[in-house]
Amino acid sequence: MTEIYENPPRNEWPRLCTRPAMDLHATEQVVQRIMDKVRVEGDTALYQLTKNLDGVDLSELFVKEEEFREADELVSDELKAAISLASRNIRLYHQQQMEDGKFIETMAGVRCWQKRVAIPKVGLYVPGGSAPLFSTVLMLTIPAVLAACQEIILCTPPPVHPAIIYAARLNGVSRILKVGGAQAIAALTLGTESVPKVDKIFGPGNRYVTLAKQLATGYGVAIDMPAGPSEVLVIADEKANAGFIAADLLAQAEHGADSQVILLCTEPTLIEQVLHRIKIVLPDLNRKESILSALKQSRFIVFPDLHTALDFSNTYAPEHLILNVQDPSHLVDGIRNAGSVFLGPFSPESVGDYASGPNHTLPTNGYARNYSGLSVSSFQKDIFFQQITEQGLQNIGPAVVAMSRAEQLQAHGLAVEVRLQRLKEED
Amino acid sequence: MTEIYENPPRNEWPRLCTRPAMDLHATEQVVQRIMDKVRVEGDTALYQLTKNLDGVDLSELFVKEEEFREADELVSDELKAAISLASRNIRLYHQQQMEDGKFIETMAGVRCWQKRVAIPKVGLYVPGGSAPLFSTVLMLTIPAVLAACQEIILCTPPPVHPAIIYAARLNGVSRILKVGGAQAIAALTLGTESVPKVDKIFGPGNRYVTLAKQLATGYGVAIDMPAGPSEVLVIADEKANAGFIAADLLAQAEHGADSQVILLCTEPTLIEQVLHRIKIVLPDLNRKESILSALKQSRFIVFPDLHTALDFSNTYAPEHLILNVQDPSHLVDGIRNAGSVFLGPFSPESVGDYASGPNHTLPTNGYARNYSGLSVSSFQKDIFFQQITEQGLQNIGPAVVAMSRAEQLQAHGLAVEVRLQRLKEED
Repeated sequence: MTEIYENPPRNEWPRLCTRPAMDLHATEQVVQRIMDKVRVEGDTALYQLTKNLDGVDLSELFVKEEEFREADELVSDELKAAISLASRNIRLYHQQQMEDGKFIETMAGVRCWQKRVAIPKVGLYVPGGSAPLFSTVLMLTIPAVLAACQEIILCTPPPVHPAIIYAARLNGVSRILKVGGAQAIAALTLGTESVPKVDKIFGPGNRYVTLAKQLATGYGVAIDMPAGPSEVLVIADEKANAGFIAADLLAQAEHGADSQVILLCTEPTLIEQVLHRIKIVLPDLNRKESILSALKQSRFIVFPDLHTALDFSNTYAPEHLILNVQDPSHLVDGIRNAGSVFLGPFSPESVGDYASGPNHTLPTNGYARNYSGLSVSSFQKDIFFQQITEQGLQNIGPAVVAMSRAEQLQAHGLAVEVRLQRLKEED
Repeated sequence: MTEIYENPPRNEWPRLCTRPAMDLHATEQVVQRIMDKVRVEGDTALYQLTKNLDGVDLSELFVKEEEFREADELVSDELKAAISLASRNIRLYHQQQMEDGKFIETMAGVRCWQKRVAIPKVGLYVPGGSAPLFSTVLMLTIPAVLAACQEIILCTPPPVHPAIIYAARLNGVSRILKVGGAQAIAALTLGTESVPKVDKIFGPGNRYVTLAKQLATGYGVAIDMPAGPSEVLVIADEKANAGFIAADLLAQAEHGADSQVILLCTEPTLIEQVLHRIKIVLPDLNRKESILSALKQSRFIVFPDLHTALDFSNTYAPEHLILNVQDPSHLVDGIRNAGSVFLGPFSPESVGDYASGPNHTLPTNGYARNYSGLSVSSFQKDIFFQQITEQGLQNIGPAVVAMSRAEQLQAHGLAVEVRLQRLKEED
C-alpha cells in the first residue's frame, strides 16, 4: 500500500518530494460567485448560503450569550481541564515570542527603533466537519489576544460545537460568527452589515476556504500562509520503536485522505515492523478509510545514514518533522527547512497538535522553506521609528546629499539641505 | 493643483484615503507570455528579451569579475564614503533585529523553543530606469547577508551602473544578473540553466515586475510584500517650518507620477506657505513633470487638532509618516498603522531612504495596516522545536488523550498511549 525505496539517487529526490496534487481551479467559479453574492447581498447572503450549503437555518449570525452559558454546562470537566492545561502551555510559549525591537543610535544623534503593533482587525477560521476542532481555536485565539488585536472575529460553520464556544471564550474571544466556507472568508474580506471587514485572515480550511483566502489577497487582505494538505516526515534510527512510529504515521494519516506521511530510516527491517504494527492497529481506528487513502501516497525510504536522511528531509521541507532517534542533538543544527520539529522517542506530534505550546498552524506543501508557523508576530507588524537630532542631521546629512545626487533625486537632498541651512543660520 | 480640505467629516475619510488606481490587468497577458517563454527557453529567452525590451545585447548574464574592478574605479571616493557610512548604519540597525526564540519549559519535561533559520535561496530585484538605485541594493543585500541566505541573486536591468555593482560587492553579494523586468522575476521563479529557482523574491519594481511577483506566488515562491506607489503623510503643528515640509513633500513626489503626498496640519495658513515654498523651489528641480503629476493627486487637510490628524493617518496607514511637530512624544503611542515614522523637525524621510538604518522597503497602498517593512526576519523563517522527556509525556499525556478523543482523532491519542504504555512496562 506504501511506496518503499532504498537509497534513491539524488536526482530522484525531487520526484519523491512531490505532494498530492491540489486542484483549486475547479472551485474558482463557485468561490467567485459566493464572494460576489456576499458583496452584493451582505448578511442576507450569509443566511441563505448557510441554509443552502450547511443545511442550517440561522436565527442570528453570531453566537449568543445564552449559547456561551450552555457550552459551559455541556463541556465535560475532564475536557475543560485538558483545554485549560493546553491553553496555559500555549499562552506561556507564545508570550515568549513577544518582543519589541531594541533602540539603537546608529550614529550620534541618529536614533532608531522599531515597535510591534497589533494588526487592528483579524478573522480566524476554524473548520467544521466531522469533529469539533477546538485545538485550532486555541492556536488562533491565544496569539491574536496576546497580540492585542482590536477586533477578533472567529468563524466556523454551524452547528457550532460547545467545545469550540467554550475554548474561544476561555481565551478571550466572544465574537463567533456561525458561518463557514467561502462565505465566511467573503464576509471577512468584504464586510457586511454585521461582519467587519478585517485586515488579515488566519486558519486552515477545505479547498473552498483555501481558494477564498487566495482571492481575499486581491482585496487588500493579508492571509497567514498558503495552505496545503498536512504532512509528517519521521526520521528513525535503528533503535526506534516500530509501535511509536506506526502510531505517529497513523495520527498524521487520519487528518485526511490527502495527508502525506514519509518515513526515513537506516534499517530495512524497521519498515517491515512498522507496516506490521500499522496492520495490527488499523482495524480499531475510526478513520480507517482516510488513513488507507493517505498511506497510498506515503513513502518509506531507507538511507545509508541519518545525515543523508536529513538532507532528504531538508529537500522535502516537511510541515512536521519527528526525529525518533536516541540522540537528536547531532541532527538539530542541520535542520534547514521544517515547520515544527519533535525531538526524541517521547515527543509525538500529537502533543504539539494539542497542548505543548508551539503553534500547530504550520507551513505545508514545501512552504516550510520560505514560511514560518503562526506566532504572535503573525498578528502584528513592525513599525520603524527614527528621530534625528540637529547634531545627528549634521553628522549624517552630507552622506545623504551625496547619495541623493548620485541617484538623481534632487529633492531628497533638498530636504536635508534646507534643514542644514536653517541650522547654519541659527548659529 | 492640490486638493485642500478643512476638517472633513469622518464618513468622507475613506474617500480621502484612496490611492491612485493601479491597473495591473492590462499587463497580465504580456507578463504571462514572458513567464512562459522563460520557462520553455531558459537562458535563451533572457538574452532575447533583454535585447528586445532593454535594447542591450548581453554577452553573458552575470556581472563579471572585470566589471567589479571597473566599478571600483568608476565610483567616486565621495560616493564610496557615503555608501560605506550608510551600509554601516543599515547593518548596525539590522543586526539588532537578529534574535532567536527563547527556550521555555511550558510544563516539567515539556521543552519548547524556536530558531530563526535562513530561507535558502533569495532573489533581490533592483529597478533600473533613469537613476542607479544603489540605496535599494543596500536595503536588500544587507539583511539577506545577515540572515545568512545560502544563495543570493541580485537582478537589475542593463546597463548596470557601477554604483550598483560596487554597493552589492561591498555588502557581500557578487551574483548580479544583468536582467530586469518580468523576465528577471520569471527566471528567479522558474529557474534557467544559469539562474537558480529561488524561494523568495524581494524588491520594488514597475507594474510588470509587480505583476510577475504576484504570479510567482502561484509557483510556490514567496514575495516580500504586495507593491504599490510610494507615499508620505506629513503631520505638522503650527510651529513647523513650511520650507522643511515643502522639501519633504517634493522628495516623495519626485519618486514618480503615481506617488501620493498628504499633508495634515492644524493651521490653514501653513498650507498656503507650503504651496508657496513648493512654487519657489520647483523650477530648479530635475523631475518637475513627475512632481507636478504626483502633486495633482495629493491632499492637504486641516484638522482641529493633532490627535484627529493622527486618527486620519491611522486610517490612511501611510508608508512614510513624518511627525513634523515640536514634541512628537505625545503622538508616538497613538500610531497604529504606518510603515516607517520620522519624528520631529530634523528627521526628513530622505535620511531614512538612504542612510540612517531602518529598511526603506516598506508597505504601501494601505498595507501598513497588515504588513511590516523588510527586516532580517523577512529573509528567515522560524522553526519550532519541542523535546518531551519521559516524565514530561506522563505530565502532558492524559490531557492530549482527552482532547484527541473529543476531536475524534483516535490515532492522535494512540501515539501518546503506546508511549505511556511502554513507560509503564519499563517500570
